[in-house]
Amino acid sequence: MNQESMKIPQATAKRLPLYYRFIQNLHSSGKQRVSSAELSEAVKVDSATIRRDFSYFGALGKKGYGYNVGYLLSFFRKTLDQDEITKVALIGVGNLGTAFLNYNFMKNNNTRIDIAFDVNAEKVGKKIGDVDVHHLDELEERLASEQIHVAILTVPAPVAQQITDRLVKADIKGILNFTPARLTVPSSIRVHHIDLAVELQSLVYFLKNYPEEVIEETNS
Amino acid sequence: MNQESMKIPQATAKRLPLYYRFIQNLHSSGKQRVSSAELSEAVKVDSATIRRDFSYFGALGKKGYGYNVGYLLSFFRKTLDQDEITKVALIGVGNLGTAFLNYNFMKNNNTRIDIAFDVNAEKVGKKIGDVDVHHLDELEERLASEQIHVAILTVPAPVAQQITDRLVKADIKGILNFTPARLTVPSSIRVHHIDLAVELQSLVYFLKNYPEEVIEETNS
Repeated sequence: MNQESMKIPQATAKRLPLYYRFIQNLHSSGKQRVSSAELSEAVKVDSATIRRDFSYFGALGKKGYGYNVGYLLSFFRKTLDQDEITKVALIGVGNLGTAFLNYNFMKNNNTRIDIAFDVNAEKVGKKIGDVDVHHLDELEERLASEQIHVAILTVPAPVAQQITDRLVKADIKGILNFTPARLTVPSSIRVHHIDLAVELQSLVYFLKNYPEEVIEETNS
Repeated sequence: MNQESMKIPQATAKRLPLYYRFIQNLHSSGKQRVSSAELSEAVKVDSATIRRDFSYFGALGKKGYGYNVGYLLSFFRKTLDQDEITKVALIGVGNLGTAFLNYNFMKNNNTRIDIAFDVNAEKVGKKIGDVDVHHLDELEERLASEQIHVAILTVPAPVAQQITDRLVKADIKGILNFTPARLTVPSSIRVHHIDLAVELQSLVYFLKNYPEEVIEETNS
């Protein structure tokens, strides 16, 4: 499956992990085929969108039969590189960071928080959710020795940019930014920004302005 | 500003709170005008997109001048109904829920967590981030008496659907779902789903498959 030659829309790419999770569940429960209507009901994405998404990968389904679960599973596993574990660093072990550490990412995918950093003496040296918390002073050295290129940023907003600058120098390629700060990075670094206040405000805006519509989820 | 007659794309609507926040900052710092290029640099959205977004609201800017900050501010305040506070309930005071309670939503917008619920005896009766934590048994009664119609769901996944069913009966109109569970709700209820594992997996997918592109953020 050569991904290099295949540029799927970002909106489609964002739904792949969701499809993959559901197909894993189906497979575990022994189901051998699934219709786009069933998929739609389960993942809350309309079936036309599902069929269009799947079409980017070639004709995976058959009319009147639906999709073969085993085939979908091996397809998504390959596509999402599930056989290779991606190591992730978490910076900032406050409430949000601790929630991440306690959350079992490995259950449904091969992304794993391998190391965490904080400056709080009560946290440094501890294990949280089986992950060692190191002092932020060791950031560069440990990222290099562990060869980690993905970071989750859950630090206070006022220090977000300075820590980001250090991450960039330490050869981090992707940052999942949970701080309200908008980060400035070189264009080769990917930042996905999840701003909790903006998400809440966006929900409220939709409720006020689109109150009676039948709704497609916007965030999947 | 009659929002009823104006249907802007959801992708645009999602960026409004972000624009609003930045324009507030500009206004506080005494700046009187701003170009779409400056806006673009600050909010990390390309300027063509900003101009298109703004065009849905009519011609707000002038060529060679940019946008008037005071006008934008009053425009966004009206559009986002910033003069009216929306009360929000938070269900589930674990690490993630506590992070929300300690996060000062009011700083940049008029959405406020007014009440929280949990089943843990160590949390019930306490105040966290100035918000009272009540027992989940009181959910229906308190939502009714406080007239709250928006909820943040930060409970363990196995109880997410049953609590959602109670929220629906209690006349909740919008749910910000932070659990990995996909919720089934009537079509009149809006659910925005933020799945932390999916967000991380999505970032990793993009890093592997779109490694060298100049990047637009996908999550704003």
